[in-house]
Amino acid sequence: MSPMPDRPFSEEEKRGVYRAIHERRDVRAQFLPTPIPAEVLGRILDAAHHAPSVGFMQPWDFIVIQDPSVRRAVYENFERANRCAADVYHDEQREAYGRMKLAGICDAPVNICITCDRERKLGHGLGRQTDPATDLYSTVCAVQNLWLAARAEALGVGWVSILDLEELKSLLGIPAALTPVAYLCIGYVSAFRSRPELEENGWERRQSLATLLHFDGWSNRDEQRAAALLEGC
Amino acid sequence: MSPMPDRPFSEEEKRGVYRAIHERRDVRAQFLPTPIPAEVLGRILDAAHHAPSVGFMQPWDFIVIQDPSVRRAVYENFERANRCAADVYHDEQREAYGRMKLAGICDAPVNICITCDRERKLGHGLGRQTDPATDLYSTVCAVQNLWLAARAEALGVGWVSILDLEELKSLLGIPAALTPVAYLCIGYVSAFRSRPELEENGWERRQSLATLLHFDGWSNRDEQRAAALLEGC
Repeated sequence: MSPMPDRPFSEEEKRGVYRAIHERRDVRAQFLPTPIPAEVLGRILDAAHHAPSVGFMQPWDFIVIQDPSVRRAVYENFERANRCAADVYHDEQREAYGRMKLAGICDAPVNICITCDRERKLGHGLGRQTDPATDLYSTVCAVQNLWLAARAEALGVGWVSILDLEELKSLLGIPAALTPVAYLCIGYVSAFRSRPELEENGWERRQSLATLLHFDGWSNRDEQRAAALLEGC
Repeated sequence: MSPMPDRPFSEEEKRGVYRAIHERRDVRAQFLPTPIPAEVLGRILDAAHHAPSVGFMQPWDFIVIQDPSVRRAVYENFERANRCAADVYHDEQREAYGRMKLAGICDAPVNICITCDRERKLGHGLGRQTDPATDLYSTVCAVQNLWLAARAEALGVGWVSILDLEELKSLLGIPAALTPVAYLCIGYVSAFRSRPELEENGWERRQSLATLLHFDGWSNRDEQRAAALLEGC
Protein backbone atom coordinates (compact mmCIF):
# COMPACT_ATOMS: atom_id res chain seq x y z
CA MET A 1 0.00 0.00 0.00
CA SER A 2 1.18 3.50 -0.72
CA PRO A 3 0.27 5.71 2.24
CA MET A 4 -0.56 9.40 2.14
CA PRO A 5 1.77 11.65 4.18
CA ASP A 6 0.21 12.06 7.62
CA ARG A 7 -0.88 15.69 7.66
CA PRO A 8 -3.70 16.33 10.13
CA PHE A 9 -6.16 19.03 9.11
CA SER A 10 -5.37 22.43 10.64
CA GLU A 11 -8.12 24.01 12.75
CA GLU A 12 -8.90 26.37 9.89
CA GLU A 13 -9.07 23.56 7.30
CA LYS A 14 -11.42 21.68 9.62
CA ARG A 15 -13.50 24.79 10.06
CA GLY A 16 -13.78 25.01 6.28
CA VAL A 17 -15.27 21.53 6.11
CA TYR A 18 -17.79 22.21 8.87
CA ARG A 19 -18.66 25.62 7.42
CA ALA A 20 -19.39 24.07 4.03
CA ILE A 21 -21.61 21.48 5.70
CA HIS A 22 -23.48 23.90 7.97
CA GLU A 23 -23.68 26.92 5.65
CA ARG A 24 -24.71 24.96 2.52
CA ARG A 25 -28.19 25.93 1.34
CA ASP A 26 -30.62 24.68 -1.29
CA VAL A 27 -30.86 27.88 -3.32
CA ARG A 28 -33.95 28.77 -5.35
CA ALA A 29 -34.44 32.54 -5.43
CA GLN A 30 -31.11 34.28 -4.82
CA PHE A 31 -29.19 33.50 -8.02
CA LEU A 32 -27.18 36.24 -9.74
CA PRO A 33 -26.39 36.14 -13.47
CA THR A 34 -22.63 36.58 -12.77
CA PRO A 35 -20.73 34.07 -14.93
CA ILE A 36 -18.88 31.24 -13.21
CA PRO A 37 -15.16 31.19 -14.17
CA ALA A 38 -14.17 28.03 -16.05
CA GLU A 39 -11.57 27.00 -13.46
CA VAL A 40 -14.13 27.22 -10.63
CA LEU A 41 -16.64 25.12 -12.58
CA GLY A 42 -13.83 22.69 -13.38
CA ARG A 43 -12.89 22.37 -9.70
CA ILE A 44 -16.42 21.58 -8.51
CA LEU A 45 -16.89 19.00 -11.29
CA ASP A 46 -13.58 17.44 -10.31
CA ALA A 47 -14.79 17.36 -6.70
CA ALA A 48 -17.88 15.44 -7.86
CA HIS A 49 -15.71 13.00 -9.81
CA HIS A 50 -13.77 12.24 -6.61
CA ALA A 51 -16.82 10.89 -4.81
CA PRO A 52 -16.75 7.33 -3.50
CA SER A 53 -18.32 4.79 -5.83
CA VAL A 54 -19.29 1.18 -5.36
CA GLY A 55 -16.52 -1.03 -6.75
CA PHE A 56 -14.95 2.18 -8.16
CA MET A 57 -17.74 2.07 -10.74
CA GLN A 58 -17.84 5.87 -11.28
CA PRO A 59 -21.33 5.56 -12.78
CA TRP A 60 -21.82 9.29 -13.28
CA ASP A 61 -21.90 11.67 -16.25
CA PHE A 62 -22.30 15.44 -16.13
CA ILE A 63 -24.37 17.44 -18.60
CA VAL A 64 -23.37 21.08 -18.19
CA ILE A 65 -26.20 23.27 -19.45
CA GLN A 66 -25.67 26.95 -20.18
CA ASP A 67 -27.72 27.41 -23.36
CA PRO A 68 -30.70 29.61 -22.33
CA SER A 69 -33.07 27.82 -24.71
CA VAL A 70 -32.31 24.43 -23.14
CA ARG A 71 -32.75 25.88 -19.65
CA ARG A 72 -36.04 27.44 -20.80
CA ALA A 73 -37.30 24.05 -22.03
CA VAL A 74 -36.32 22.41 -18.72
CA TYR A 75 -38.10 25.22 -16.88
CA GLU A 76 -41.30 24.51 -18.83
CA ASN A 77 -40.99 20.85 -17.82
CA PHE A 78 -40.64 22.00 -14.18
CA GLU A 79 -43.67 24.29 -14.45
CA ARG A 80 -45.93 21.51 -15.70
CA ALA A 81 -44.67 19.06 -13.07
CA ASN A 82 -45.04 21.68 -10.36
CA ARG A 83 -48.66 22.43 -11.30
CA CYS A 84 -49.47 18.72 -10.88
CA ALA A 85 -47.49 18.58 -7.63
CA ALA A 86 -49.40 21.56 -6.22
CA ASP A 87 -52.70 19.74 -6.74
CA VAL A 88 -52.16 17.37 -3.83
CA TYR A 89 -52.17 20.25 -1.32
CA HIS A 90 -55.25 22.03 -0.03
CA ASP A 91 -56.23 25.23 1.70
CA GLU A 92 -53.45 26.99 3.59
CA GLN A 93 -50.86 24.39 2.64
CA ARG A 94 -51.66 24.87 -1.03
CA GLU A 95 -51.27 28.62 -0.64
CA ALA A 96 -47.96 28.13 1.15
CA TYR A 97 -46.82 25.78 -1.62
CA GLY A 98 -47.83 28.29 -4.28
CA ARG A 99 -45.89 31.09 -2.59
CA MET A 100 -42.58 29.24 -2.77
CA LYS A 101 -40.15 29.64 -5.64
CA LEU A 102 -38.92 26.09 -6.12
CA ALA A 103 -36.47 26.35 -8.99
CA GLY A 104 -33.87 28.80 -10.30
CA ILE A 105 -33.39 27.03 -13.64
CA CYS A 106 -33.33 30.16 -15.80
CA ASP A 107 -31.81 32.53 -13.19
CA ALA A 108 -28.74 30.40 -12.45
CA PRO A 109 -26.18 30.73 -15.28
CA VAL A 110 -25.22 27.05 -15.11
CA ASN A 111 -27.36 23.95 -14.69
CA ILE A 112 -25.83 20.49 -14.33
CA CYS A 113 -27.70 17.24 -14.79
CA ILE A 114 -25.91 14.36 -13.08
CA THR A 115 -26.83 10.93 -14.39
CA CYS A 116 -26.18 7.35 -13.31
CA ASP A 117 -25.37 4.69 -15.89
CA ARG A 118 -26.94 1.61 -14.32
CA GLU A 119 -25.24 -0.71 -16.80
CA ARG A 120 -21.69 0.64 -16.69
CA LYS A 121 -19.34 -2.33 -16.46
CA LEU A 122 -16.66 -0.52 -14.46
CA GLY A 123 -16.03 -2.03 -11.05
CA HIS A 124 -17.16 -5.47 -12.24
CA GLY A 125 -20.18 -5.43 -9.94
CA LEU A 126 -18.08 -5.38 -6.75
CA GLY A 127 -20.34 -4.40 -3.84
CA ARG A 128 -23.52 -4.21 -5.91
CA GLN A 129 -24.85 -7.75 -5.69
CA THR A 130 -26.60 -7.33 -2.35
CA ASP A 131 -27.81 -3.80 -3.03
CA PRO A 132 -28.21 -2.81 -6.70
CA ALA A 133 -29.16 0.76 -5.68
CA THR A 134 -25.58 1.46 -4.63
CA ASP A 135 -24.74 2.87 -8.08
CA LEU A 136 -27.43 5.51 -7.58
CA TYR A 137 -26.03 6.14 -4.10
CA SER A 138 -22.54 6.68 -5.54
CA THR A 139 -23.96 9.26 -7.92
CA VAL A 140 -25.58 11.10 -5.00
CA CYS A 141 -22.20 11.20 -3.24
CA ALA A 142 -20.91 13.02 -6.32
CA VAL A 143 -23.78 15.50 -6.04
CA GLN A 144 -22.98 16.21 -2.40
CA ASN A 145 -19.25 16.63 -3.10
CA LEU A 146 -20.08 19.16 -5.81
CA TRP A 147 -22.52 20.97 -3.52
CA LEU A 148 -20.02 21.37 -0.68
CA ALA A 149 -17.16 22.42 -2.99
CA ALA A 150 -19.54 24.95 -4.57
CA ARG A 151 -20.35 26.38 -1.12
CA ALA A 152 -16.65 26.87 -0.41
CA GLU A 153 -16.43 28.74 -3.74
CA ALA A 154 -19.36 30.97 -2.64
CA LEU A 155 -21.59 29.34 -5.27
CA GLY A 156 -25.19 28.46 -4.49
CA VAL A 157 -26.71 25.18 -5.66
CA GLY A 158 -30.39 24.22 -5.88
CA TRP A 159 -31.47 20.62 -6.51
CA VAL A 160 -34.65 20.56 -8.59
CA SER A 161 -36.49 17.27 -8.25
CA ILE A 162 -39.88 18.48 -9.49
CA LEU A 163 -39.35 17.43 -13.11
CA ASP A 164 -40.88 14.83 -15.37
CA LEU A 165 -37.76 12.68 -15.63
CA GLU A 166 -38.75 10.83 -18.80
CA GLU A 167 -39.38 14.13 -20.51
CA LEU A 168 -36.05 15.46 -19.19
CA LYS A 169 -34.24 12.43 -20.62
CA SER A 170 -35.80 12.97 -23.99
CA LEU A 171 -35.11 16.72 -23.92
CA LEU A 172 -31.42 16.19 -23.11
CA GLY A 173 -31.04 13.08 -25.26
CA ILE A 174 -30.06 10.90 -22.29
CA PRO A 175 -29.89 7.18 -23.26
CA ALA A 176 -32.62 4.90 -21.89
CA ALA A 177 -30.37 2.88 -19.55
CA LEU A 178 -29.39 5.99 -17.61
CA THR A 179 -31.15 7.57 -14.66
CA PRO A 180 -31.02 11.34 -14.18
CA VAL A 181 -30.28 11.50 -10.45
CA ALA A 182 -30.00 15.24 -9.90
CA TYR A 183 -30.77 18.42 -11.80
CA LEU A 184 -28.78 21.24 -10.21
CA CYS A 185 -28.95 25.02 -10.67
CA ILE A 186 -25.63 26.70 -9.89
CA GLY A 187 -24.59 30.33 -9.57
CA TYR A 188 -23.36 33.10 -7.34
CA VAL A 189 -26.01 34.41 -4.96
CA SER A 190 -27.14 37.72 -3.48
CA ALA A 191 -26.97 36.03 -0.06
CA PHE A 192 -27.14 32.64 1.60
CA ARG A 193 -30.00 32.21 4.05
CA SER A 194 -29.01 31.68 7.65
CA ARG A 195 -31.39 28.70 7.88
CA PRO A 196 -32.94 26.36 5.27
CA GLU A 197 -35.76 28.10 3.42
CA LEU A 198 -38.34 25.43 4.31
CA GLU A 199 -37.46 25.90 7.98
CA GLU A 200 -37.53 29.69 7.78
CA ASN A 201 -40.92 29.81 6.10
CA GLY A 202 -42.47 27.28 8.46
CA TRP A 203 -43.01 24.44 5.96
CA GLU A 204 -41.16 21.99 8.22
CA ARG A 205 -39.10 21.99 11.40
CA ARG A 206 -35.61 20.64 11.99
CA GLN A 207 -35.79 17.43 13.99
CA SER A 208 -33.81 17.02 17.15
CA LEU A 209 -30.84 14.82 16.26
CA ALA A 210 -30.96 13.16 19.70
CA THR A 211 -34.33 11.59 18.83
CA LEU A 212 -32.82 10.01 15.70
CA LEU A 213 -30.02 8.19 17.52
CA HIS A 214 -30.16 4.51 18.46
CA PHE A 215 -27.52 2.47 20.24
CA ASP A 216 -26.50 -1.04 19.16
CA GLY A 217 -30.04 -1.70 17.89
CA TRP A 218 -33.15 0.17 16.77
CA SER A 219 -35.11 -0.23 19.98
CA ASN A 220 -32.36 1.08 22.22
CA ARG A 221 -32.79 4.82 22.44
CA ASP A 222 -31.01 6.46 25.31
CA GLU A 223 -31.67 10.16 25.78
CA GLN A 224 -28.88 10.71 28.26
CA ARG A 225 -26.31 8.99 26.09
CA ALA A 226 -27.53 10.90 23.03
CA ALA A 227 -27.36 14.20 24.92
CA ALA A 228 -23.83 13.41 26.11
CA LEU A 229 -22.71 12.63 22.54
CA LEU A 230 -24.16 15.82 21.18
CA GLU A 231 -23.17 18.13 24.03
CA GLY A 232 -20.67 20.13 21.97
CA CYS A 233 -22.86 20.56 18.85
CA MET B 1 -35.48 36.18 4.41
CA SER B 2 -32.78 36.23 7.05
CA PRO B 3 -29.38 36.30 5.31
CA MET B 4 -26.17 34.83 6.60
CA PRO B 5 -23.32 37.34 7.11
CA ASP B 6 -21.26 37.40 3.92
CA ARG B 7 -18.00 35.73 4.93
CA PRO B 8 -16.14 34.23 1.98
CA PHE B 9 -14.15 31.10 2.78
CA SER B 10 -10.47 31.82 3.45
CA GLU B 11 -7.96 30.02 1.22
CA GLU B 12 -7.20 27.65 4.08
CA GLU B 13 -10.87 26.90 4.76
CA LYS B 14 -11.36 26.18 1.04
CA ARG B 15 -8.31 23.96 1.07
CA GLY B 16 -9.88 22.03 3.95
CA VAL B 17 -12.97 21.31 1.86
CA TYR B 18 -10.96 20.14 -1.15
CA ARG B 19 -8.60 18.11 1.02
CA ALA B 20 -11.53 16.30 2.62
CA ILE B 21 -12.93 15.56 -0.84
CA HIS B 22 -9.65 14.42 -2.41
CA GLU B 23 -8.08 12.67 0.59
CA ARG B 24 -11.22 10.78 1.66
CA ARG B 25 -10.79 7.01 1.34
CA ASP B 26 -13.03 3.97 1.69
CA VAL B 27 -11.16 2.28 4.51
CA ARG B 28 -11.19 -1.49 4.99
CA ALA B 29 -7.90 -2.68 6.45
CA GLN B 30 -6.22 0.19 8.33
CA PHE B 31 -8.50 0.65 11.34
CA LEU B 32 -6.98 1.14 14.79
CA PRO B 33 -8.86 0.24 17.99
CA THR B 34 -8.31 3.76 19.42
CA PRO B 35 -11.63 4.97 20.88
CA ILE B 36 -13.38 7.90 19.21
CA PRO B 37 -14.03 10.76 21.68
CA ALA B 38 -17.75 11.42 22.21
CA GLU B 39 -17.54 15.02 21.00
CA VAL B 40 -15.90 13.95 17.72
CA LEU B 41 -18.56 11.30 17.13
CA GLY B 42 -21.20 13.89 18.00
CA ARG B 43 -19.79 16.36 15.49
CA ILE B 44 -19.77 13.93 12.56
CA LEU B 45 -23.33 12.80 13.37
CA ASP B 46 -24.40 16.44 13.49
CA ALA B 47 -22.71 16.95 10.10
CA ALA B 48 -24.81 14.10 8.71
CA HIS B 49 -27.98 15.62 10.18
CA HIS B 50 -27.22 18.86 8.32
CA ALA B 51 -27.42 17.21 4.90
CA PRO B 52 -29.95 18.52 2.39
CA SER B 53 -33.21 16.60 2.33
CA VAL B 54 -36.14 16.62 -0.07
CA GLY B 55 -38.86 18.90 1.35
CA PHE B 56 -36.75 19.06 4.57
CA MET B 57 -37.95 15.48 5.18
CA GLN B 58 -34.86 14.46 7.20
CA PRO B 59 -35.69 10.78 6.57
CA TRP B 60 -32.60 9.43 8.34
CA ASP B 61 -31.92 7.62 11.62
CA PHE B 62 -28.52 6.60 12.97
CA ILE B 63 -27.84 3.33 14.76
CA VAL B 64 -24.49 3.69 16.51
CA ILE B 65 -23.02 0.24 17.08
CA GLN B 66 -20.16 -0.30 19.49
CA ASP B 67 -21.15 -3.57 21.15
CA PRO B 68 -18.61 -6.16 19.92
CA SER B 69 -21.20 -8.95 19.86
CA VAL B 70 -23.49 -6.96 17.54
CA ARG B 71 -20.55 -6.11 15.28
CA ARG B 72 -19.56 -9.79 15.29
CA ALA B 73 -23.07 -10.80 14.16
CA VAL B 74 -23.00 -8.18 11.38
CA TYR B 75 -19.59 -9.48 10.36
CA GLU B 76 -20.99 -13.01 10.03
CA ASN B 77 -23.75 -11.60 7.80
CA PHE B 78 -21.04 -9.95 5.68
CA GLU B 79 -19.00 -13.15 5.45
CA ARG B 80 -21.94 -15.16 4.14
CA ALA B 81 -22.93 -12.45 1.65
CA ASN B 82 -19.32 -12.10 0.53
CA ARG B 83 -18.94 -15.83 -0.12
CA CYS B 84 -21.98 -15.66 -2.44
CA ALA B 85 -20.66 -12.48 -4.06
CA ALA B 86 -17.27 -14.11 -4.75
CA ASP B 87 -18.99 -16.90 -6.69
CA VAL B 88 -19.71 -14.71 -9.72
CA TYR B 89 -16.01 -14.18 -10.39
CA HIS B 90 -13.69 -16.67 -12.06
CA ASP B 91 -10.01 -17.41 -12.46
CA GLU B 92 -7.70 -14.45 -11.83
CA GLN B 93 -10.55 -12.10 -11.00
CA ARG B 94 -11.81 -14.48 -8.36
CA GLU B 95 -8.37 -14.67 -6.84
CA ALA B 96 -8.08 -10.88 -6.87
CA TYR B 97 -11.51 -10.64 -5.22
CA GLY B 98 -10.52 -13.16 -2.57
CA ARG B 99 -7.33 -11.25 -1.73
CA MET B 100 -9.20 -8.06 -0.85
CA LYS B 101 -10.29 -7.25 2.67
CA LEU B 102 -13.70 -5.69 2.07
CA ALA B 103 -14.93 -4.83 5.55
CA GLY B 104 -13.51 -3.58 8.85
CA ILE B 105 -16.67 -4.27 10.87
CA CYS B 106 -14.92 -5.76 13.91
CA ASP B 107 -11.69 -3.72 13.66
CA ALA B 108 -13.33 -0.29 13.62
CA PRO B 109 -14.48 0.66 17.13
CA VAL B 110 -17.70 2.29 15.86
CA ASN B 111 -20.13 1.17 13.18
CA ILE B 112 -23.07 3.33 12.12
CA CYS B 113 -26.06 2.09 10.19
CA ILE B 114 -27.88 4.96 8.46
CA THR B 115 -31.48 4.22 7.54
CA CYS B 116 -34.15 5.94 5.46
CA ASP B 117 -37.74 6.04 6.68
CA ARG B 118 -39.63 5.93 3.39
CA GLU B 119 -42.92 6.79 5.08
CA ARG B 120 -41.85 9.71 7.25
CA LYS B 121 -44.45 12.43 6.93
CA LEU B 122 -42.03 15.33 7.42
CA GLY B 123 -41.77 17.65 4.45
CA HIS B 124 -45.33 16.78 3.33
CA GLY B 125 -44.07 15.12 0.16
CA LEU B 126 -42.62 18.34 -1.27
CA GLY B 127 -40.28 17.44 -4.14
CA ARG B 128 -40.95 13.71 -3.97
CA GLN B 129 -43.91 13.29 -6.32
CA THR B 130 -41.88 13.13 -9.52
CA ASP B 131 -39.05 11.09 -8.03
CA PRO B 132 -39.89 8.97 -4.98
CA ALA B 133 -36.22 7.89 -4.66
CA THR B 134 -35.26 11.37 -3.47
CA ASP B 135 -35.67 10.34 0.19
CA LEU B 136 -33.00 7.68 -0.33
CA TYR B 137 -30.86 10.31 -2.07
CA SER B 138 -31.22 12.66 0.92
CA THR B 139 -30.02 9.88 3.20
CA VAL B 140 -26.95 9.37 1.00
CA CYS B 141 -26.18 13.10 1.29
CA ALA B 142 -26.09 12.55 5.06
CA VAL B 143 -23.65 9.68 4.57
CA GLN B 144 -21.34 11.83 2.45
CA ASN B 145 -21.45 14.73 4.94
CA LEU B 146 -20.47 12.35 7.72
CA TRP B 147 -17.69 10.84 5.60
CA LEU B 148 -16.11 14.21 4.77
CA ALA B 149 -16.40 15.51 8.34
CA ALA B 150 -14.82 12.27 9.53
CA ARG B 151 -11.89 12.78 7.13
CA ALA B 152 -11.28 16.25 8.54
CA GLU B 153 -11.22 14.65 12.01
CA ALA B 154 -8.61 12.10 10.76
CA LEU B 155 -11.19 9.31 11.01
CA GLY B 156 -11.45 6.65 8.33
CA VAL B 157 -14.83 5.42 7.09
CA GLY B 158 -15.62 2.27 5.11
CA TRP B 159 -19.03 1.74 3.51
CA VAL B 160 -19.93 -1.97 3.58
CA SER B 161 -22.59 -2.82 1.02
CA ILE B 162 -21.97 -6.56 0.90
CA LEU B 163 -24.61 -7.47 3.48
CA ASP B 164 -27.91 -9.31 3.35
CA LEU B 165 -30.05 -6.27 4.10
CA GLU B 166 -33.14 -8.17 5.26
CA GLU B 167 -31.00 -10.09 7.72
CA LEU B 168 -29.35 -6.84 8.85
CA LYS B 169 -32.77 -5.30 9.48
CA SER B 170 -33.83 -8.24 11.56
CA LEU B 171 -30.51 -8.31 13.47
CA LEU B 172 -30.75 -4.60 14.36
CA GLY B 173 -34.54 -4.62 14.83
CA ILE B 174 -35.09 -2.04 12.07
CA PRO B 175 -38.83 -1.61 11.27
CA ALA B 176 -40.07 -2.99 7.94
CA ALA B 177 -40.85 0.39 6.32
CA LEU B 178 -37.23 1.51 6.66
CA THR B 179 -34.38 0.94 4.24
CA PRO B 180 -30.84 0.55 5.57
CA VAL B 181 -28.97 2.80 3.13
CA ALA B 182 -25.44 2.58 4.48
CA TYR B 183 -23.49 0.47 6.94
CA LEU B 184 -20.34 2.37 7.90
CA CYS B 185 -17.23 1.31 9.81
CA ILE B 186 -15.52 4.25 11.51
CA GLY B 187 -12.22 4.63 13.34
CA TYR B 188 -8.77 6.14 13.40
CA VAL B 189 -6.38 4.59 10.89
CA SER B 190 -2.73 3.61 10.67
CA ALA B 191 -2.60 5.56 7.38
CA PHE B 192 -4.81 6.77 4.56
CA ARG B 193 -3.91 5.41 1.14
CA SER B 194 -2.72 7.96 -1.39
CA ARG B 195 -5.12 6.52 -3.99
CA PRO B 196 -8.33 4.47 -3.74
CA GLU B 197 -7.56 0.85 -2.88
CA LEU B 198 -9.38 -0.53 -5.94
CA GLU B 199 -7.29 1.74 -8.15
CA GLU B 200 -4.02 0.88 -6.37
CA ASN B 201 -4.57 -2.86 -6.63
CA GLY B 202 -5.62 -2.71 -10.27
CA TRP B 203 -9.28 -3.74 -9.82
CA GLU B 204 -10.46 -0.67 -11.75
CA ARG B 205 -9.04 2.53 -13.23
CA ARG B 206 -10.10 6.11 -12.62
CA GLN B 207 -11.99 7.42 -15.64
CA SER B 208 -10.94 10.63 -17.31
CA LEU B 209 -13.43 13.27 -16.17
CA ALA B 210 -13.24 14.96 -19.59
CA THR B 211 -14.89 11.93 -21.20
CA LEU B 212 -17.82 12.21 -18.78
CA LEU B 213 -18.70 15.81 -19.64
CA HIS B 214 -21.48 16.77 -22.03
CA PHE B 215 -22.55 20.26 -23.02
CA ASP B 216 -26.20 21.34 -23.25
CA GLY B 217 -27.24 17.79 -24.21
CA TRP B 218 -25.97 14.23 -24.03
CA SER B 219 -24.73 13.97 -27.60
CA ASN B 220 -22.64 17.12 -27.42
CA ARG B 221 -19.21 16.12 -26.17
CA ASP B 222 -16.48 18.62 -26.83
CA GLU B 223 -13.00 17.55 -25.89
CA GLN B 224 -11.46 20.98 -26.25
CA ARG B 225 -14.10 22.62 -24.12
CA ALA B 226 -13.80 19.87 -21.51
CA ALA B 227 -10.02 20.21 -21.45
CA ALA B 228 -10.29 23.98 -21.02
CA LEU B 229 -12.72 23.56 -18.11
CA LEU B 230 -10.49 21.08 -16.36
CA GLU B 231 -7.16 22.75 -17.07
CA GLY B 232 -6.48 23.69 -13.45
CA CYS B 233 -7.49 20.32 -11.92
